[in-house]
Amino acid sequence: MQLIQHSFCPHSRFIRLVLGEYGLTAELVDEPVWERRAEFLTLNPAATTPVLIDDGVTIVGVQPIAEYIDEKYGEAAGAMRLMPSDLAGRAEVRRLISWFNDKFFAEVSEYLVQEKILKRNLSATNGGGAPDSGAIRAARVNVGYHLGYIGWLLKSRNWLATNRITYADLAAAAHLSAADYLGDVPWNEDESAKQWYARIKSRPAFRPLLAESLPGLAPAPTYANLDF
Amino acid sequence: MQLIQHSFCPHSRFIRLVLGEYGLTAELVDEPVWERRAEFLTLNPAATTPVLIDDGVTIVGVQPIAEYIDEKYGEAAGAMRLMPSDLAGRAEVRRLISWFNDKFFAEVSEYLVQEKILKRNLSATNGGGAPDSGAIRAARVNVGYHLGYIGWLLKSRNWLATNRITYADLAAAAHLSAADYLGDVPWNEDESAKQWYARIKSRPAFRPLLAESLPGLAPAPTYANLDF
Repeated sequence: MQLIQHSFCPHSRFIRLVLGEYGLTAELVDEPVWERRAEFLTLNPAATTPVLIDDGVTIVGVQPIAEYIDEKYGEAAGAMRLMPSDLAGRAEVRRLISWFNDKFFAEVSEYLVQEKILKRNLSATNGGGAPDSGAIRAARVNVGYHLGYIGWLLKSRNWLATNRITYADLAAAAHLSAADYLGDVPWNEDESAKQWYARIKSRPAFRPLLAESLPGLAPAPTYANLDF
Repeated sequence: MQLIQHSFCPHSRFIRLVLGEYGLTAELVDEPVWERRAEFLTLNPAATTPVLIDDGVTIVGVQPIAEYIDEKYGEAAGAMRLMPSDLAGRAEVRRLISWFNDKFFAEVSEYLVQEKILKRNLSATNGGGAPDSGAIRAARVNVGYHLGYIGWLLKSRNWLATNRITYADLAAAAHLSAADYLGDVPWNEDESAKQWYARIKSRPAFRPLLAESLPGLAPAPTYANLDF
């Protein structure tokens, strides 16, 4: 298996966590999406990561990859399957996957990754330059609202979608981890959300993410600290 | 079944086409999403349509609803199933669902519906007012690029994802139909895309969409013309 990704793409991080939880190993291939390489556009004309190649099949995009992994490997995981088996549970997991991959991304992690990380790779004529402080401020306000929502969900459940860990937790944690690396998550605003994230980041599947760092941009001090 | 939707929400149109193809009947409940009614936010805190209620189960969001319908009703449809049964085919259908529901929406249909339709319902302080002509111009340029992509796909396939009609065709046609109502699709730019759309809009499932109109905003002359 090959996962075409980049380190701070939250959608790629979600798939890496899923593969890790299932004990599946994929070669990670970093794609500089901002270069819009012709070879990559042939694989995915939308020019986005992640793309998974498995057994000669190319699966493009985060939701298709998550569904593919569930269809191909989910059943074999037995009680550790990351999707519930009942229709209502599956619908709730997918609602929350979309909440984080679409809504949280648009309101928080896309701004932060774009302004603080991707812009460093772009020339001034291609949208590079100093981070937009307005966008970063907006993302920081929005992340508090999402922590509150996570805390609210945890009032009635052990994990975000059900009483077991599912894709929903991994999607949420993947997006939060990108923001957390940058020091932009106000964990003290919601104690339940903080405890939930401490549980997730202690899992072995999380370790490779916590070990990564960007040249010239060190992680926030508590990023890899399992007890905050 | 109840489908909470609004007429020109392209995501709701996609689900209506899916239900129509499967011969499933749902009561349509129009939700004025711009009012952010407390009762609706309880059902879907993201405040978006569509939401499906089926047998007491609430399914929120377009992708979760499409997957739910496939899981619950797909197999019974036999050869008319709108999702392929092989993993690679399913991945390709999902890639294209996301292409239209996410990318086409962000680049074309969201602009058009927001500027030309939803703004009519908003007060000036809530973002109402005259349509933003820059946004509409951008959408019109982008739609040509998407027609070209549809034409390119049809060079190697009878329908967008495979040689049979799938969710991918219905998602694409749903978004195009909203733009087409507004007269914003340059059909003459791609003959294959035009022929494909003529095939889709002749299907019985499409009829209810073609019969709808907005008070004070008549459809473009060819909107309901099956031969253009």
